[in-house]
Amino acid sequence: MTDPTPAQQSGPDAAAGTGLSRRRALGLLGAGALGAGVGVGVPSLHAGAAAPTTRSTVPFHGAHQAGITTSMQGHLHFASFDVTTRDRAALVGLLQRWTSAAAALTAGRELGVDGALGGQPLAPPEDTGEALGHDASRLTLTFGFGPSLFDGRFGLAGRRPAALADLPAFAGDVLEPARSGGDLCVQACADDPQVAVHAIRNLTRLASGVAAIKWAQLGFGRASSTNAREATPRNLFGFKDGTANITADDTAALEEHVWASAADGASWMAGGSYLVARQIRMLTETWDRTSLTEQEQVTGRSKGEGAPLGSRRERDAVVPAALPPRSHVALAHPSAHGGARMLRRGYNFVDGADGLGHLDAGLFFLAYQRDPRRAFVSVQRALSRSDAMGEYLRHTGSSLWAVPPGALPGGWVGQTLFA
Amino acid sequence: MTDPTPAQQSGPDAAAGTGLSRRRALGLLGAGALGAGVGVGVPSLHAGAAAPTTRSTVPFHGAHQAGITTSMQGHLHFASFDVTTRDRAALVGLLQRWTSAAAALTAGRELGVDGALGGQPLAPPEDTGEALGHDASRLTLTFGFGPSLFDGRFGLAGRRPAALADLPAFAGDVLEPARSGGDLCVQACADDPQVAVHAIRNLTRLASGVAAIKWAQLGFGRASSTNAREATPRNLFGFKDGTANITADDTAALEEHVWASAADGASWMAGGSYLVARQIRMLTETWDRTSLTEQEQVTGRSKGEGAPLGSRRERDAVVPAALPPRSHVALAHPSAHGGARMLRRGYNFVDGADGLGHLDAGLFFLAYQRDPRRAFVSVQRALSRSDAMGEYLRHTGSSLWAVPPGALPGGWVGQTLFA
Repeated sequence: MTDPTPAQQSGPDAAAGTGLSRRRALGLLGAGALGAGVGVGVPSLHAGAAAPTTRSTVPFHGAHQAGITTSMQGHLHFASFDVTTRDRAALVGLLQRWTSAAAALTAGRELGVDGALGGQPLAPPEDTGEALGHDASRLTLTFGFGPSLFDGRFGLAGRRPAALADLPAFAGDVLEPARSGGDLCVQACADDPQVAVHAIRNLTRLASGVAAIKWAQLGFGRASSTNAREATPRNLFGFKDGTANITADDTAALEEHVWASAADGASWMAGGSYLVARQIRMLTETWDRTSLTEQEQVTGRSKGEGAPLGSRRERDAVVPAALPPRSHVALAHPSAHGGARMLRRGYNFVDGADGLGHLDAGLFFLAYQRDPRRAFVSVQRALSRSDAMGEYLRHTGSSLWAVPPGALPGGWVGQTLFA
Repeated sequence: MTDPTPAQQSGPDAAAGTGLSRRRALGLLGAGALGAGVGVGVPSLHAGAAAPTTRSTVPFHGAHQAGITTSMQGHLHFASFDVTTRDRAALVGLLQRWTSAAAALTAGRELGVDGALGGQPLAPPEDTGEALGHDASRLTLTFGFGPSLFDGRFGLAGRRPAALADLPAFAGDVLEPARSGGDLCVQACADDPQVAVHAIRNLTRLASGVAAIKWAQLGFGRASSTNAREATPRNLFGFKDGTANITADDTAALEEHVWASAADGASWMAGGSYLVARQIRMLTETWDRTSLTEQEQVTGRSKGEGAPLGSRRERDAVVPAALPPRSHVALAHPSAHGGARMLRRGYNFVDGADGLGHLDAGLFFLAYQRDPRRAFVSVQRALSRSDAMGEYLRHTGSSLWAVPPGALPGGWVGQTLFA
């Protein structure tokens, strides 16, 4: 399949692209407009002008949605929505509006025909404006459908994929309803948090009367790597995370473990994937009081290099039998789960303090997979029973999403489901 | 006075400095260590080695604390602490440990003698490790004392500055105790959020048994500018914010409006400043439904250029009498407050959703000033009575801090208070 995200090849410095940014375009055009006494409206920037294609832009259209294999951006804004109508046509209309808006926003354009400044002065602006002066910042917008969307409201009950089976309860879950579930999700990733926030805010506006935001999560400092050329980032336990992740250039692994196929049962999901999102609170204060040896035994890797214990280098092969049997890496290893793997792109989060003298911090776990029953559920069942790391973790939020294939120009995200 | 923060002169691209980063140093030394079969410990990186001074490093020591006039970094982690002991010596010991740690962290060094990896394997590491591989990222750490520190517990009741008068209640305040007040604060600013979070987390660890975190706030995308050469950033209402801010090179304005003087009454605060921190929820959904004209009338500036209404350019002089009398800019103008000005360095925040279908988002307002009674209190009293923007804002958190002068090498932050 074609790679929908060529921009990911440019690596973590892609945001430093040299193309024309919104700020510079506005500055150049604004000066002329001001000189002519026209004021600050710059309508030529809006009105569907062709986007400047720069290294900061990740193509939106493609066989797969962007934001899955895309090299991880620095910031996440993830939002879950409840659909507030029972009108199927209104829901379809929202998906069409979201698709159109996502194509504009990911290209670094303002929203709507008239953007933030070019509309009628007595009307609310189409774009809220806080991203003026910011370039696309490798923004990706990835849409998903929760299991609850397939209840009786929209005539979709017969189209629920078997792989979108409700996640079971796991030992140690302390899930909060206010951080869990939802009918629709949008994952916004960008190298500039203001750009990701602007996107979620404006998509939320476009949903008015059709869907309302249920919960949202900000994240930073990618806690995984989806690019073998990048150094593996560290999670809030101080360990490298994602060494054995599926990378964007491993086409065979993506086909086998990430992309759903028509042969899997739900043909409308061909080229899509399933996303498990978990808010995992990390009890850093407790962790920080344990010894380096204990931390490494619990993890199964060395803290500095990230090598499997007993090995020397980060990418040395993991041999589970050579690791402490209750270590995180041993229990999660594909060999214990029928070879199943996931593409992880989680982010660290800090949501202030918990009111008990501790930071409310951890990992917002995001993992894409072809079938959660064979991947996440199998792994988490083993971890929840035995993982030595479990005493330092609390799963406080959980959601599951069917992420449909990408839209081609002229199409819309979800079209294969509603067609 | 000497400028403690020369690195700020390098502007917003300072983080792209070319010096040796922790990641690269670790990689270089680690490879050698591994080749010699030593494992992953790299003790030569710890043990008080001289910091690599790069453009990503803001000097910690100086007449003033860094993080006030320092050109604003991209990310904020602000924490408020309750002191949990009545032992004055323990409190002094904490301030000494914090000073030493802040000098190391802001120089890009790991914490303690042995850092994250170099200690005894059977002991908890001195540094939590998640900033390994990240450079200093222009980290600044700025410490403050809340009014409650001057109660009877530590023998400081007689040393409370008159300028640290409790803030009055303002019309429209809906302050939450869990987001307000505190005995001690640390403002961490960095261009990399993981570096700011790492700093607050490790300072919190060092406070164990002496102080516990009360509340904390993450922020992003500086909502003000403290550098006249930077484009003015936009707040979540989409407007430029901070056009008329005091800039780091305006020494006369800093002396008059920001730095406390011995002549002000509390000699221990000479060279320090007073910080007002307010969590201001912005009702973006309501704002977004108003017309561009109404938004501009409420603000008093144009949305695109940021010019005072009726003028053409952002930096044209503000003439309050020429603006709508209830506009934000007119009411806050220094001419209405005896000429008082503040140095603002607020950050945008998004704390998920509010459970009612809205983003919980706004401005974490941070303003440094010589005397809050003549500056913030005067301005906020006027705004809370008349500001047309008030219907779109809710002040949900409030705190006030005496930010003492900077420490010189060998000294510690707060020494002038406890001496």
